[in-house]
Amino acid sequence: MTDPAIIAELRAVLGDGGLLTEPADLAPYESGARYDRGRAAFVARPRSTAEVSRTVGLCVRHGVTLIPQSGNTGVVAGSTPDMSGTQAVLSLDRLTAPFALDRINRSVTAGAGLRLSELNRRLAPDHLFFPIDLGADPRLGGMIATNTGGSRFLRYGDVRRNTLGLTVVLADPDGTVLNLAAGLRKDNTGPDWKQLFIGTSGSFGVVTECVLNLEPLPQQTAAALLVPASPDKVPDLLIAMEQALGFYLSAFEGMSRNAMAAAFAHAPSLRNPFAGGAIPDFAILTEVSRSWLPRPGEQPLSAVLEDVLADLLGRADPLLGDALVGRPEEMWTLRHALSEGVRQSGKLVAFDLSFRRGDIMRFIAHMKAEMPKRFSGITICDFGHVGDGGVHFNLVLDRADPRAGDAGFEQGLRDWVFEVAVAGFGGSFSAEHAIGRRNQGMYARYTEAQLRRLAAGFKAATSPGPLGAVEL
Amino acid sequence: MTDPAIIAELRAVLGDGGLLTEPADLAPYESGARYDRGRAAFVARPRSTAEVSRTVGLCVRHGVTLIPQSGNTGVVAGSTPDMSGTQAVLSLDRLTAPFALDRINRSVTAGAGLRLSELNRRLAPDHLFFPIDLGADPRLGGMIATNTGGSRFLRYGDVRRNTLGLTVVLADPDGTVLNLAAGLRKDNTGPDWKQLFIGTSGSFGVVTECVLNLEPLPQQTAAALLVPASPDKVPDLLIAMEQALGFYLSAFEGMSRNAMAAAFAHAPSLRNPFAGGAIPDFAILTEVSRSWLPRPGEQPLSAVLEDVLADLLGRADPLLGDALVGRPEEMWTLRHALSEGVRQSGKLVAFDLSFRRGDIMRFIAHMKAEMPKRFSGITICDFGHVGDGGVHFNLVLDRADPRAGDAGFEQGLRDWVFEVAVAGFGGSFSAEHAIGRRNQGMYARYTEAQLRRLAAGFKAATSPGPLGAVEL
Repeated sequence: MTDPAIIAELRAVLGDGGLLTEPADLAPYESGARYDRGRAAFVARPRSTAEVSRTVGLCVRHGVTLIPQSGNTGVVAGSTPDMSGTQAVLSLDRLTAPFALDRINRSVTAGAGLRLSELNRRLAPDHLFFPIDLGADPRLGGMIATNTGGSRFLRYGDVRRNTLGLTVVLADPDGTVLNLAAGLRKDNTGPDWKQLFIGTSGSFGVVTECVLNLEPLPQQTAAALLVPASPDKVPDLLIAMEQALGFYLSAFEGMSRNAMAAAFAHAPSLRNPFAGGAIPDFAILTEVSRSWLPRPGEQPLSAVLEDVLADLLGRADPLLGDALVGRPEEMWTLRHALSEGVRQSGKLVAFDLSFRRGDIMRFIAHMKAEMPKRFSGITICDFGHVGDGGVHFNLVLDRADPRAGDAGFEQGLRDWVFEVAVAGFGGSFSAEHAIGRRNQGMYARYTEAQLRRLAAGFKAATSPGPLGAVEL
Repeated sequence: MTDPAIIAELRAVLGDGGLLTEPADLAPYESGARYDRGRAAFVARPRSTAEVSRTVGLCVRHGVTLIPQSGNTGVVAGSTPDMSGTQAVLSLDRLTAPFALDRINRSVTAGAGLRLSELNRRLAPDHLFFPIDLGADPRLGGMIATNTGGSRFLRYGDVRRNTLGLTVVLADPDGTVLNLAAGLRKDNTGPDWKQLFIGTSGSFGVVTECVLNLEPLPQQTAAALLVPASPDKVPDLLIAMEQALGFYLSAFEGMSRNAMAAAFAHAPSLRNPFAGGAIPDFAILTEVSRSWLPRPGEQPLSAVLEDVLADLLGRADPLLGDALVGRPEEMWTLRHALSEGVRQSGKLVAFDLSFRRGDIMRFIAHMKAEMPKRFSGITICDFGHVGDGGVHFNLVLDRADPRAGDAGFEQGLRDWVFEVAVAGFGGSFSAEHAIGRRNQGMYARYTEAQLRRLAAGFKAATSPGPLGAVEL
């Protein structure tokens, strides 16, 4: 139980509604989006950088561990307290100001507690958006802490690429505020310190404000489902599409037969677009888009896509088996249904892996061959972002399988997959979910000792107080 | 003079041609591209990461300061030794291997000593290029150390955005090699350490290899010279062009009348494209490009540009005064002639500034008004990268002016310009040239003390030996 004097001090800083201590009030902040469940000593809800600074400084001085929590949509237990009841949550949910659009700079300065959907709603009248696209609706601070990627990475890159500036509160006794928020697009006057607060799970500091790059909102979109001639043709198909369509290409998302079958089984309203309902081994949702309205004399974007696909279908050495051009919304509905469909289909053991782009299909083929030799009764339901090397590699067991609740079995399975992915294929054990308690062990296992020493040294020198769910 | 025992040890590591000690051999490494001139104790020319590691380790153990030198095309005295004769040059000019193109990953792993032109020559058969465009022909290591921007930043970003991995040798007694070269496009498994070796002038370590993102080579290009209705309309003109042309837009370069006049005066073969030869107050070279060959049914790119410009010329509230569509090569010849023309036109005091995009024209207007009140007889010959906020703010004095050789006068002028740019307009004192001895003082003046402490702490903990021309 937290010292009542600390609670009183925090209440004075944070005001009414700014400090929660009642169990019923704490509950929403104690559970994560998917897996994690913990107990919070209290929840602090600052409304400004100054309040974050005072909260953090006070907690550092009293040795209270703060877990920064943004939209709490992450899936690696990075934003919830552990079960000890001694950790407190620093919620960003009231830190939604400022909101300052700089139309000429094509940037916005926003509070880290703003939701992505709300940001984009406010930007739409200016035909701008923050181009990170994902299923969940996180708040900005968490997107920065995890360096979110998403489905349009191929065109727009990740949060890192689109972050022009940050305001950060360090975990030191003063709650020092680092101002890295000039918002210049070009500036080489020393180390780009903001980079170390992106993708580091809030362990080096609390992001309170950000300056984000904005992009013109797409005004025309076309999409197609591609069936590769065979799964091993996928990499060359990607290259062919990139060569033909350049920066028109805004998504190139892979979907395995098993993942699509799970989606169709669990979302009956979902239309199966394949001829005769025969789900192919692998399909790709590809999207092209551009930011201007149709102009007289200009070929419609859907016609551009159709022409390119016709060329590909006509190649002597076929890469493409079939192509279905259709309504983008319908295709994305299928794509977005995969995650829930797979989860519904059994006991899920999920991985968020990435590879060099040429290695994804090789890794999947390898796993399909090796899995039955190692682990029986496991269905591989992969899907993901072929265009940037990411794959949501999902393994599903029948819920009736006695191994489904066996933590030791799951650990053995996870260890093996990580070992093949990271050591065998040079991949990443966390492509876009960053580090949380769930993959803290992998950080220790797969990060070279000298890099772990660098991180510990930076933490100790910069932001030494107890902050965040992970230790880097 | 360097201890002969050190020289002998280095010669054993580096082999024939790998260690230069004769004055005639040292000379090419002692002078910079524009300003700086120093004296080298010796020049080490390693051919591999292992040789760099042994060289750096040995020099750290003996306290010899190494100045990493890449293409030596920088203009801030960041890659040459000082006049003491005690500093040695670590040249990357033989470190041109490996060269490994990963076509599917659209990346290349290359030695830091490879020249940009040679890299792109080797990539051209695969219709790929490293999309950093600039007048000089640097080697890759220097581009990383300075985080080069260039003229297509608006489309492709800087070196940072296009760097997927690095191999770095730290300045410690072991010459520790950091392997940050997995080359994944998506990876969030801890701090992205490579970021601290980009744009830090080689002071935190020597980059020996890099994994670079490649882009499809443009196959169609069109360009126009735009004359804004007035200079203050430039920001809205940029936004209008971005809204109309999206990612087609690959350059939006500003050119002042004085800079253009200097180019025409000093390059007589340069054609003056303006009606009646009347150079406007300000002009913009804009370029659109796309990576595919013309397709049947698709409007030519030049027609797209012409349509957009016709729309802009027809607006009720005019942003655009005139627009000349022409051959891109000819327009770029003018753009590239500015730098030399300005330099030839008198005693040059040059600045590489950047601002939020909306502040560039305000800053220039402010300077035009204030300069005559502060300093007489100075011609402002600005040009630069309006699309990303960068401006090469050049001040020219008549060479006959007695102040032209007066270091105190120049310092006063520089101090005032920096103060207005950085303190007054929130700009950067080094947009794309990074830090060298020439602007070391500005780093100390304009970097907050806590950030300087961070840098010194990181340097001491990571790479403590004497390395590089600057101190961060």
